[in-house]
Amino acid sequence: MSSKPTNVLITGANRGLGLEMVRQMAEDKGQVKKLFACCKEPSGAKSEGLQTLAKKHLDIIIIIPMDVSDLDSIKEAAKLIGPQLGGEGLNLLINNAGIVGDIHSRVQEIAPKDVQDVFNVNFMGPLNVIQEFLPHLRAAATVSGTTGMSCSKAAVINISSCMGSITSAMGYDSSVPCVPYRISKVALNMLTVCAAEEMKKDEILFAVLRPGWVRTEMGGPQGEIDVEESVNGMLEVMASMSEEHSGAFLDYKHRTMPW
Amino acid sequence: MSSKPTNVLITGANRGLGLEMVRQMAEDKGQVKKLFACCKEPSGAKSEGLQTLAKKHLDIIIIIPMDVSDLDSIKEAAKLIGPQLGGEGLNLLINNAGIVGDIHSRVQEIAPKDVQDVFNVNFMGPLNVIQEFLPHLRAAATVSGTTGMSCSKAAVINISSCMGSITSAMGYDSSVPCVPYRISKVALNMLTVCAAEEMKKDEILFAVLRPGWVRTEMGGPQGEIDVEESVNGMLEVMASMSEEHSGAFLDYKHRTMPW
Repeated sequence: MSSKPTNVLITGANRGLGLEMVRQMAEDKGQVKKLFACCKEPSGAKSEGLQTLAKKHLDIIIIIPMDVSDLDSIKEAAKLIGPQLGGEGLNLLINNAGIVGDIHSRVQEIAPKDVQDVFNVNFMGPLNVIQEFLPHLRAAATVSGTTGMSCSKAAVINISSCMGSITSAMGYDSSVPCVPYRISKVALNMLTVCAAEEMKKDEILFAVLRPGWVRTEMGGPQGEIDVEESVNGMLEVMASMSEEHSGAFLDYKHRTMPW
Repeated sequence: MSSKPTNVLITGANRGLGLEMVRQMAEDKGQVKKLFACCKEPSGAKSEGLQTLAKKHLDIIIIIPMDVSDLDSIKEAAKLIGPQLGGEGLNLLINNAGIVGDIHSRVQEIAPKDVQDVFNVNFMGPLNVIQEFLPHLRAAATVSGTTGMSCSKAAVINISSCMGSITSAMGYDSSVPCVPYRISKVALNMLTVCAAEEMKKDEILFAVLRPGWVRTEMGGPQGEIDVEESVNGMLEVMASMSEEHSGAFLDYKHRTMPW
């Protein structure tokens, strides 16, 4: 980020990439003012790491319950967060929450419900979160007093995957068809580009990031990089982004991904 | 097509591109043996053109009721069609049925239901139709006695759109955001590539075609080409396809579209 303090919202903040983003952002003193760490069950066993981190950074981290698969839950979260933003608005929204579904799911036998469940979390979730927080992103863009776009002014970063790339789906590893996940992520990619076009005049940046194949609960132990490297890379990419990157699909090393 | 007679199924066969496909295929004597023209309401006012055409080609055109948004209806259609294929199987399935939804629908105000309705017809429809007819496509590939792939052996052609291209969504005409439609078509494109990979060993060809901007009820009167030109082009493209085109996204002039 730039040196300007920012208000940040991260979904799926209790583990994996989300938790590491919260950690690195909170520990990078002075950069982030308020960090709204959203997750489904803040008091559950899977959120202990986030709770511990929040206690260390009481002035920065604010844990908010949010189930991205439930519009009412998103609306409740927006009601809690809105008043805490004051007139500054929301500078950066990171749609990180996601599920992978059944990695063995193939075209020939996917049940409609499998597609819908993954689509609901990975696509409808970000769409609904964007819609709810758009007024706060617009406010941030307006009060910034700067021209152009950046992640410290007003931006939405959607966490996607190389599995959201149709180009990469050609010749994929047949042991990991993972079709419902691919469908949800390519839809998220399309949404990002449409939003980037639509919100250009509002100077809100929209982009897709690929974290790489990370050794998280989702990525599994064979992953190529650890979560620190992935998140460090993605935060550097975000910090470097300007209007020329709105609508882009970049990986954690700033490489452009093919659609 | 090649000179070999083929069994063909077309969804959304009562108007626009679907009806014209039926007409050109039925009138191209000797190429198509049985043409299952599927549509939602075969006896409705919107199917009169198809009924008239079927009376002219009683030996070829078989009208089948099928609502692609309803899995039960697809299963009923499969029960009607299966026995009529005999041991030959289904050579060509054209997933043409689709809806455009609200063309003015933007990211900032789409209702979840709008996304779901269009996704249900344009994505879940083709997925369910593919799953139901896959055994018949496999049968056709097996009995063909030939190697390689073609639309006269065993193929699924999904009708998409330039609006299914993320690349084309960058800098799109802001008067036609049409976001739910773009989402559904990019998902269909991803499905096609996954299916192409998955069914390679079965020698079933999967590809996406872009009809162009056609002067149909969906495309509107400003369209760039008429329905005859679009369908004639697409049938020529289909006839020329081989295994190298499985997983491809081509337009009616055989130009490769960007994802």
